[in-house]
Amino acid sequence: MKKCTLSERELPRAWYNIAADLPEPLRPPLDPGTGQPIGPEKLAPIFPLPLLEQEMSAQREIPIPPEVLDVYASWRPTPLVRATRLEKHLGTPARIFYKYEGASPAGSHKPNTAVAQAYYNKLSGVKRLTTETGAGQWGSALAYGCCLFGLQLKVYMVKVSYHQKPYRKSIIQAWGGEIVPSPSHDTQAGRRFLAENPDSPGSLGIAISEAVEDAASRDDTNYSLGSVLNHVLLHQTVIGLETQRQFKEFNLEPDVVIGCVGGGSNFGGLAIPYVRERIAGRKVRAVAVEPTACPSITRGHYHYDFGDTAEMTPLLAMHTLGHQFLPPGIHAGGLRYHGMSPLISHMVRLGLVEAKALNQLECFRAAVTFARTEGLIPAPETSHAIRAAIVEAERCKAEGKAETIVFNFSGHGLLDMSAYDAYFADELGDYTLPEKELKEAWELIRGLPKP
Amino acid sequence: MKKCTLSERELPRAWYNIAADLPEPLRPPLDPGTGQPIGPEKLAPIFPLPLLEQEMSAQREIPIPPEVLDVYASWRPTPLVRATRLEKHLGTPARIFYKYEGASPAGSHKPNTAVAQAYYNKLSGVKRLTTETGAGQWGSALAYGCCLFGLQLKVYMVKVSYHQKPYRKSIIQAWGGEIVPSPSHDTQAGRRFLAENPDSPGSLGIAISEAVEDAASRDDTNYSLGSVLNHVLLHQTVIGLETQRQFKEFNLEPDVVIGCVGGGSNFGGLAIPYVRERIAGRKVRAVAVEPTACPSITRGHYHYDFGDTAEMTPLLAMHTLGHQFLPPGIHAGGLRYHGMSPLISHMVRLGLVEAKALNQLECFRAAVTFARTEGLIPAPETSHAIRAAIVEAERCKAEGKAETIVFNFSGHGLLDMSAYDAYFADELGDYTLPEKELKEAWELIRGLPKP
Repeated sequence: MKKCTLSERELPRAWYNIAADLPEPLRPPLDPGTGQPIGPEKLAPIFPLPLLEQEMSAQREIPIPPEVLDVYASWRPTPLVRATRLEKHLGTPARIFYKYEGASPAGSHKPNTAVAQAYYNKLSGVKRLTTETGAGQWGSALAYGCCLFGLQLKVYMVKVSYHQKPYRKSIIQAWGGEIVPSPSHDTQAGRRFLAENPDSPGSLGIAISEAVEDAASRDDTNYSLGSVLNHVLLHQTVIGLETQRQFKEFNLEPDVVIGCVGGGSNFGGLAIPYVRERIAGRKVRAVAVEPTACPSITRGHYHYDFGDTAEMTPLLAMHTLGHQFLPPGIHAGGLRYHGMSPLISHMVRLGLVEAKALNQLECFRAAVTFARTEGLIPAPETSHAIRAAIVEAERCKAEGKAETIVFNFSGHGLLDMSAYDAYFADELGDYTLPEKELKEAWELIRGLPKP
Repeated sequence: MKKCTLSERELPRAWYNIAADLPEPLRPPLDPGTGQPIGPEKLAPIFPLPLLEQEMSAQREIPIPPEVLDVYASWRPTPLVRATRLEKHLGTPARIFYKYEGASPAGSHKPNTAVAQAYYNKLSGVKRLTTETGAGQWGSALAYGCCLFGLQLKVYMVKVSYHQKPYRKSIIQAWGGEIVPSPSHDTQAGRRFLAENPDSPGSLGIAISEAVEDAASRDDTNYSLGSVLNHVLLHQTVIGLETQRQFKEFNLEPDVVIGCVGGGSNFGGLAIPYVRERIAGRKVRAVAVEPTACPSITRGHYHYDFGDTAEMTPLLAMHTLGHQFLPPGIHAGGLRYHGMSPLISHMVRLGLVEAKALNQLECFRAAVTFARTEGLIPAPETSHAIRAAIVEAERCKAEGKAETIVFNFSGHGLLDMSAYDAYFADELGDYTLPEKELKEAWELIRGLPKP
């Protein structure tokens, strides 16, 4: 059997909340004014109550509403596919599987939470959402969700990606969303960043500041985040829950579970149900892969920091490069975030998750190998997971071990072809951050509270 | 139930060849020199024997080779989805279903035959293939097929589409294919067309001439066609065969089966197994939808004509606008062909298939309605099938009938966003061909044999 598809009837009926099983509780978000844990009332102006409840919940299983399941059923369950041609190409005894999240209408895993967030906001009487987007996968996914539930949407898209990926803009418009390059003239924060640097390429941190300001300043508007927060990772667990069922059909259990990390949502979605198995005593490794150009886990600090550049969010306990850090314009725009999901950071600290950083060029090489063996063209973000899976498979070959490896194919790259053009034209390079730059960014946050 | 997915085990094991069941045999292709039916030996320089056998076969079921099934299994069986949100939006009692062929790695139905053709050519010792492509869906699908079976590929892409859809070029390159805009300087035919009109937008007819000339002039090279011919439609029947099984799961039988037609392959793939039911006596309508800008069935003649512009192919009995006809540059590039599959034309003449022509703007409107209800952004070609399904659903509403309608969602439009940009910017218009233009093109072929 090459591929396991489940029927619509086998869709998970609940998301899995790992907060119920963590050996140590998560550090709470802090109010930057008081340094005290922040209550839901402070976040209520920009998030609907059901999502705030999920953010803080300790309940192990949280039912997926029927309205969300109905939309999930348009493309879920997604296939779990064995990459037999890649295995043969590598000559490895390892079994390599990928969970194909590119099957969604927006081409990535992002709709898993976009649909849920749009639903809960609609339910709570909200008329309009704002958000930021890097490579555009999140912005287009939320446009899809908003359009199905009749919400207006404004997307602040990181400027460098806005120009690299013009089709993402068109897709957001086709689903009825409004989009501007960030930093924009539409917010105070945006105008301030533009005044400081009119040629700013933008960053997720800046775009978050703009989207939060917009939402906070309008009564009819909420803010929606595509990664980082607990409720986002919660919605994504549908990926790992399906994968567990699918491996039963193959009569296998994975030894290594891999995903790329920017904010952590696709990795978390696949890995969290397996981290549960690890907590319960089964030997399974969960590997989070980040780019060397934005290495928040492998070279950042675990510290309280702002989620955005303009210091508008609560303080989050996470691996961070510092909220003033401006990542270089690598093509995997979805991985250009200074911080990391507090939940992933926490699991790294507890030894439940390991992290590694990879260079851009080795990832593009892996992407082309995958495209020419398995036939799917991955998004640049996804290529990090593929490269890491290949590294593990090569280790298995050297050690003569037939391990089972699974990675999250978080999105297809059909809208990222300009990045491939640049790669084939030899215009891309590797970029390792100088120690000096990291230290400077770190100096700016060391006065914030320690977790 | 919203969607029916089948397991890999339920993949059809044989293609269905309707030649075995037609009430009247197809008219044979003719040698343009002698006016006599052409034998396989004349076509052997550009097609491998197994495909020529399939082209002429009268055997009802033709087994799908295991190597092809193995690749099909990467994305097939594709889902059959009920468009419940679209139904609700239209307020129709009709049930609307779509077969989602956009799930393939290339994003369309084209890999169904691309994989088979690459396999049979590899099996026959061929090293290199040439082909033409309109919107690029076929070229990218064949690049995918060739890359999996280790064949070189050169794609002649219609120039107007080459510039409208730059990402298609990048995708073909990512899969290792070579691509040039047609007319090109690489063939005698191309140079002749460029000498006549240096600004020629190109056409499928011209690109076919170039690809055939290239293949005929090199011993290691064969030619591959993405539509029109019997063996191509044969490979596509996997779509309709899966759909028949899936409707059993829904306990329904479709009353109307719809597909867009350029050369006829996606429509044929879905409809042919249903035409078999119609021949056997069940009441089911098969509707082929073409653009008013290139109306080969609805305004062309059923006649022998060349398949290409430079008169290099055998004469085919088909609905044609004349092989010198140059369609206007509408955005549904895959539908810009002067002729039609001889098999589809034959079924139209026998009253087994009906045809209708639709305007560009009503199709884009339907595409946006579909994207904003069901969430999938269709290719401009596919939008013709969607509009026709909506017209049928509106008729059902007026007549108070709960008919079951199915259309082929032949490909997603994520690579066609420039066409959507033009639509939203009000830059597109409708185009109905003047009678004079049709008459002039027709005059040039009336001396050819009558079927």
